[in-house]
Amino acid sequence: MTVEKSNRPEARSPRGFRDRMGAELAAERRMLETIRSVYEAYGFDALETSAIEYADALGKFLPDQDRPNEGVFAFRDDDEQWLAMRYDLTAPLARFVAENFDALPKPFRRYQAGQVFRNEKPGPGRYREFTQFDADTVGTASVVADAEGYMMLCDALEKLGLGGNYLVKVNNRKVLNGVLEAIGIAKGAASEGQRGAVLRAIDKLDRLGPQAVRQLLGAGRKDESGDFTRGAELGAAAIERVVALTEVNAAARGDVCDRLLALVATSEEGRKGVDELREIDNILTAAGYGDERVRFDPSVVRGLAYYTGPVVEAELTFQVTNEDGQLVRFGSVASGGRYDDLIMRFKGVEVPATGISIGVSRLLAALIAKGLVSTASAQGPIVVLVMDRDAMGGYLAMVRELRAAGLRAELYTGTAGMKAQLKYADKRQSPVVIIEGGDERAKGAVTLKDLALGAERAKDIKDRDQWSKGSEAQMTVPRANLVEAVKQILARGGRRA
Amino acid sequence: MTVEKSNRPEARSPRGFRDRMGAELAAERRMLETIRSVYEAYGFDALETSAIEYADALGKFLPDQDRPNEGVFAFRDDDEQWLAMRYDLTAPLARFVAENFDALPKPFRRYQAGQVFRNEKPGPGRYREFTQFDADTVGTASVVADAEGYMMLCDALEKLGLGGNYLVKVNNRKVLNGVLEAIGIAKGAASEGQRGAVLRAIDKLDRLGPQAVRQLLGAGRKDESGDFTRGAELGAAAIERVVALTEVNAAARGDVCDRLLALVATSEEGRKGVDELREIDNILTAAGYGDERVRFDPSVVRGLAYYTGPVVEAELTFQVTNEDGQLVRFGSVASGGRYDDLIMRFKGVEVPATGISIGVSRLLAALIAKGLVSTASAQGPIVVLVMDRDAMGGYLAMVRELRAAGLRAELYTGTAGMKAQLKYADKRQSPVVIIEGGDERAKGAVTLKDLALGAERAKDIKDRDQWSKGSEAQMTVPRANLVEAVKQILARGGRRA
Repeated sequence: MTVEKSNRPEARSPRGFRDRMGAELAAERRMLETIRSVYEAYGFDALETSAIEYADALGKFLPDQDRPNEGVFAFRDDDEQWLAMRYDLTAPLARFVAENFDALPKPFRRYQAGQVFRNEKPGPGRYREFTQFDADTVGTASVVADAEGYMMLCDALEKLGLGGNYLVKVNNRKVLNGVLEAIGIAKGAASEGQRGAVLRAIDKLDRLGPQAVRQLLGAGRKDESGDFTRGAELGAAAIERVVALTEVNAAARGDVCDRLLALVATSEEGRKGVDELREIDNILTAAGYGDERVRFDPSVVRGLAYYTGPVVEAELTFQVTNEDGQLVRFGSVASGGRYDDLIMRFKGVEVPATGISIGVSRLLAALIAKGLVSTASAQGPIVVLVMDRDAMGGYLAMVRELRAAGLRAELYTGTAGMKAQLKYADKRQSPVVIIEGGDERAKGAVTLKDLALGAERAKDIKDRDQWSKGSEAQMTVPRANLVEAVKQILARGGRRA
Repeated sequence: MTVEKSNRPEARSPRGFRDRMGAELAAERRMLETIRSVYEAYGFDALETSAIEYADALGKFLPDQDRPNEGVFAFRDDDEQWLAMRYDLTAPLARFVAENFDALPKPFRRYQAGQVFRNEKPGPGRYREFTQFDADTVGTASVVADAEGYMMLCDALEKLGLGGNYLVKVNNRKVLNGVLEAIGIAKGAASEGQRGAVLRAIDKLDRLGPQAVRQLLGAGRKDESGDFTRGAELGAAAIERVVALTEVNAAARGDVCDRLLALVATSEEGRKGVDELREIDNILTAAGYGDERVRFDPSVVRGLAYYTGPVVEAELTFQVTNEDGQLVRFGSVASGGRYDDLIMRFKGVEVPATGISIGVSRLLAALIAKGLVSTASAQGPIVVLVMDRDAMGGYLAMVRELRAAGLRAELYTGTAGMKAQLKYADKRQSPVVIIEGGDERAKGAVTLKDLALGAERAKDIKDRDQWSKGSEAQMTVPRANLVEAVKQILARGGRRA
């Protein structure tokens, strides 16, 4: 029986989706476990919300979108209500808190790791399904919660082995608001579009440089492909004032605060923003998190419109080679901020909240780049070959003994001959295969093949010394010594993970 | 600033979706970890496919659907291709194997735990997003793979503490096909509808009893609500032959095989089915998995149309009280079977495969019902109260010391007074709160409140003995002894998880 080719669907993942296997998944699992242990130690509890929400509950808060309401996978339920797949873990948290407000302790501290979905154009390293690891504190306006979040993030990065290779960069939207107030752009619905354009312009400083940002703050900018992006339409003096803000730069957090205060002295909100930064500085300093780990950087704004106070971005500072062969900083792996108004959408009153989201695959890529997690395939199982189907009971006893000794072991479950079975074991990265044919059985013995040593020997057969060692790649031992002999081979190293 | 009520979205999960928290998630994580460790020991590797697939790649294999093609969340991509959320983990595996066929070792053994989505009517305990834990062996027609799957499932259930409380029930579709052949229903497209109706009828034996199954095998059946289900339109003799098959029952697997052979002796496929069961019996017996753990039960058919050989269902045999107050068996927690044709949809040639899927929330519910996992809330963090915002540095040092000692500890990050902070700690299930006011600080001391003991004392204030113990619920110790004193309190028991 066969199926005509024309009737067959093509076997492929949709654009922007992918499959992941063994070694990568194991590394990611260990990484998530490490982060989780730090977050738990800080008193955060696990929460898991559903992958699908009512579209109106998610709202239109997709980051970095010039066209809001796009970028989401949405569909109608059979009662005609619009459902959407979550695009982040913050909007579902806002829904959850509003739904369960009275029952929750305040502050409410939760972490959640989960997949999010973006209906966006995929690209290299840019997927439409990816994992975020969020931690948020809801129900307190105190920046102690923000500062604790930065410390917790530092601790997680240190525990992952990234000490000395990261910088947590902090800013405060209130300071930016102070500057906007000073140049005559008051908060409110009327200025929303313009404020958004200013945020997006500053957010591009790292990538495009100050000249492009000036254009984007002004009339607009035509990029290399000829596409024109409309600007924020600020006047020349206002543009220089915003650029001056982003260029405030000092190693010491206290010095940054002093310079910011000079720029926003006339604005009450601006002064409050600087006060908050000073309080954060005090907390961090008291807890031993110095400028070399957490810096104040006014060029950090984060694209999201809903941030209302301190914002944060964690950058990995070591260099990697990019696609064009240039050495570049690894860059951002986590970001977040305070969003005091988001839950108000449901509750009608302000519920202050702050959080940080880790981009899981970015961070995993960093750990791999730094050699902090193994990229080698996981060790394959010990494979017991099936030489004689009537002796199955004996083969089964072997795998059971090996597993009982804490080893990965499997019985070959296919129907092919010995040569194919050895090839299978090799493809599985098996360290040892066990062979019991009629001869061995008659003698109460088993033959063990050290596939790692065998592979090594095959690489360099010119070396006489290697040849003499080669005999060790296969040995016959009494059946009763099976587990002990396997452990001896594994102890040589070879393919052990 | 407030938002008008009429403009606010309602904060709620969509119908059939839910949020889960702390204790349940922790229990599920441990359970999945246990299953994973067994599957890894058997040589299965992790695979993670995307939650979204092309709809045509998923196909129309939704289980137990009288109306195929419904029950899926589907939507159009911007290039007009239909995407769908996966409704199980088997269809994506078939796609993955077909896509990567040449690169994979054969047999290919993978496990995957992940959420699946069904666009079905939700009900009590019936959600539209739930987790499955699957293990499959692809690329071998040998029933050694099926038998190993049953053993692995037994091992996982035993390791979870369910030894003596489960039964893995096995049947073979080939035997049923043999009976259908004997009553004149040959395989083929023409008989597909009728064969499906026979399968669905047998599948309802447990729930509806043999009389209803006879109706469903014949002209059809009107249920209590008056709804009519069309039957398989078998004649009276054929009905009795099918019912006789489902009623074959014996404690010993060998006896079941003997009786089945008598029913299908005229059919080659039927005889092959019995031979396969005998081989499975031999393997299980050799490996020490007796009839008390794995039984042959011809009433097990599983609704899925794509099964081609052995099928399996794991049932938990202990009793629980159902919604109507009746004692009933806990029932099915895992199922699966051999599906030799599923990958053919893509490849055009047969790729034999077999697998088992665990219903994760069903199994977790069973562990909770048996008291095998803790249903108590996870232990809350030790809470350091903020009595004096200027002393923040000192409070931060305390939480850091406690965390360094391996304890969960948090600084209160809200802005409320002492009474509200104590209430917060209580709501968090905090075992101990730390208080350092001006008096304590002046003396170089801290006060510890044992909230567990305090709560106990409040329950029974009539007992004199309790009163005198009450003094232990609060103590002041030198600041330097903080960690030691906390550990002493925790060692008393109280709220420890």
